[in-house]
Amino acid sequence: MSLSIRDLATPGVRALQPYQPGKPLGELEREYGIRDAIKLASNENPLGPSPLGLAAARQALGEVELYPDSHGFALKQALATALAVDPGQLVLGNGSNEILQLVARAFLNPGDEVVVAQYAFAIFTTVAVSAGGSVVTVPARDWGADLPAMRAAVTDRTRVIFLANPNNPTGTWHRAAPLRAFLESLPQHVVVVLDEAYCEYVSEPDYPNGLAWLAQFPNLLVSRTFSKIYGLAGLRLGYGVASAPMADLLNRLREPFTVNNLALAAGEAALADHEHVRRARDANAQGLVALVAACERLGLACIPSVGNFIAVDVGRPAGPVYEALLRRGVIVRPLAPYGMPNHLRITIGTPAQMDRLLAALPQALAG
Amino acid sequence: MSLSIRDLATPGVRALQPYQPGKPLGELEREYGIRDAIKLASNENPLGPSPLGLAAARQALGEVELYPDSHGFALKQALATALAVDPGQLVLGNGSNEILQLVARAFLNPGDEVVVAQYAFAIFTTVAVSAGGSVVTVPARDWGADLPAMRAAVTDRTRVIFLANPNNPTGTWHRAAPLRAFLESLPQHVVVVLDEAYCEYVSEPDYPNGLAWLAQFPNLLVSRTFSKIYGLAGLRLGYGVASAPMADLLNRLREPFTVNNLALAAGEAALADHEHVRRARDANAQGLVALVAACERLGLACIPSVGNFIAVDVGRPAGPVYEALLRRGVIVRPLAPYGMPNHLRITIGTPAQMDRLLAALPQALAG
Repeated sequence: MSLSIRDLATPGVRALQPYQPGKPLGELEREYGIRDAIKLASNENPLGPSPLGLAAARQALGEVELYPDSHGFALKQALATALAVDPGQLVLGNGSNEILQLVARAFLNPGDEVVVAQYAFAIFTTVAVSAGGSVVTVPARDWGADLPAMRAAVTDRTRVIFLANPNNPTGTWHRAAPLRAFLESLPQHVVVVLDEAYCEYVSEPDYPNGLAWLAQFPNLLVSRTFSKIYGLAGLRLGYGVASAPMADLLNRLREPFTVNNLALAAGEAALADHEHVRRARDANAQGLVALVAACERLGLACIPSVGNFIAVDVGRPAGPVYEALLRRGVIVRPLAPYGMPNHLRITIGTPAQMDRLLAALPQALAG
Repeated sequence: MSLSIRDLATPGVRALQPYQPGKPLGELEREYGIRDAIKLASNENPLGPSPLGLAAARQALGEVELYPDSHGFALKQALATALAVDPGQLVLGNGSNEILQLVARAFLNPGDEVVVAQYAFAIFTTVAVSAGGSVVTVPARDWGADLPAMRAAVTDRTRVIFLANPNNPTGTWHRAAPLRAFLESLPQHVVVVLDEAYCEYVSEPDYPNGLAWLAQFPNLLVSRTFSKIYGLAGLRLGYGVASAPMADLLNRLREPFTVNNLALAAGEAALADHEHVRRARDANAQGLVALVAACERLGLACIPSVGNFIAVDVGRPAGPVYEALLRRGVIVRPLAPYGMPNHLRITIGTPAQMDRLLAALPQALAG
């Protein structure tokens, strides 16, 4: 009898479903023979990278043969100052995905339970499953996480809760008071990851800054990224902020060189580029209002979003609409993998990109 | 009673010892107030990056706001052609460290055994321990892996063997016939990682190319890197080559965007830069002979190496010698973490760097 490789893998790895990323521009152009396609599929910054970050990355190419500083000393100093935390509270990651994965690997024994909300960011589930965790998915309420129901799903076996604020792909968010009450209600054997990948876009007055709660909750980790408003998705840089003991534990688990030289340099410079962040936030706010209005004129319902994207209900299976948009050179994100078969997620692009989308969308809807 | 964060972590993570990387130049200069230090501590390429790879990285900065192609289509095509394998046999990693980690996470359930040789690359043990594996370290023979003893250490619980050819930090290597016999002797429930990070430096006629054995051994994975001879350590790029089923399994486990845009572009270009590889190999071969001769003149024994580094027995505890070299602006690698307290590992540098080392070394030895 012959053992297959799959037979040798852990149960968690055998259960994994591959993540379905946004289609890259080059792939669309290869497959469809299209030029000048636009990508509104991965919530990237349509204004591009922070110019200061880009200049720092270019400079860092001068020592590309050297391993990066495994401790990320300079970037951690800059982050600590900007966020008013201690450098020892920081964990750097190869994108914030690595932070999520480190938490899963640090705290999950096979069979330990992980609580996530329906429609939550898909990577929460894949990192949990790959670490052997048993994922408990709590039904959403108005497309967002139902915090009381999530609390009720916590058991003695629960080790980790992943919660995004705002959430991708729905754009839903939590106000300060109920979120804080949720954190206060949890037993101390539960680690909470509060993913704030899109926090810089949110201007609602009652939107909480998770960092303010770290002193009160030693089991809380806040994850953030340079892939969104900072425009550095291609370099891969994210970070976690937590109590010093949790950060130390994750830093021990982390491979020494997961963050590359250029990401370290670009992140430090981009963090100081307040002008770029302000421009991106303002452009997004205007684009979001305009896109929602345009969708409503087309009779399409949008889930209210505070991010740089909206989830749009196209009122029929979204797969053919997605395909029809692809043929017109517009890449958006079908949400069937999230159990939202009638929704497309659309990133807020430049005005020119939105014009292109809004020219193609009625045709795509007409079939 | 209060639970500490450490109490919540998995047993493997609680057992982790942090990896001790080579000291970065910037850190030495900060701590010691030194300028113009040289780093011979991380087996980087003293000739720098492939110029073609560097140009491609610079070009890729033009779309740094976009997520990388998660499948690495173009780089895999180039690697497949260069290595005469199918693209489906390839796994790309954020350095080859990620490949090692993926294997550990894919195949190790808590308590499963991992066999490594004494003095083997430290990351083998950390990835195994962090995945919950129980590491069986087999005593070395003449500083290298003792293959018959490793075979004898395999049990029903053994799931993974990590073996480097050549090995870092000792520079020892295995000839084709005994290594192939070792692979043939293993039961089919054991996955073997053959780490060939330094293979491009080896010109011994009896040195085997592990890729030639993949068809025969479906449980074999060969890992390689762009951090050494290609001079791209700062960008983080490595890869694994295995049977298609094993590659597929690891690709499912891998987070979608672990390899950044610039690494994808630079790796593809560097792979075609045969001139840079040839120059680096020739310079290293000359530098290796010269450094061994110089050490022997100083009465220091070297472990015979086929890599771009040598492990030198300084005949006394190496820590103070390492510190004395640091004060003279020369960073090497003390091997106490490997249980080799009298050895320093020294990377073969440029002739000017070797002159600098050889001027400082007698003084450092004199205390």
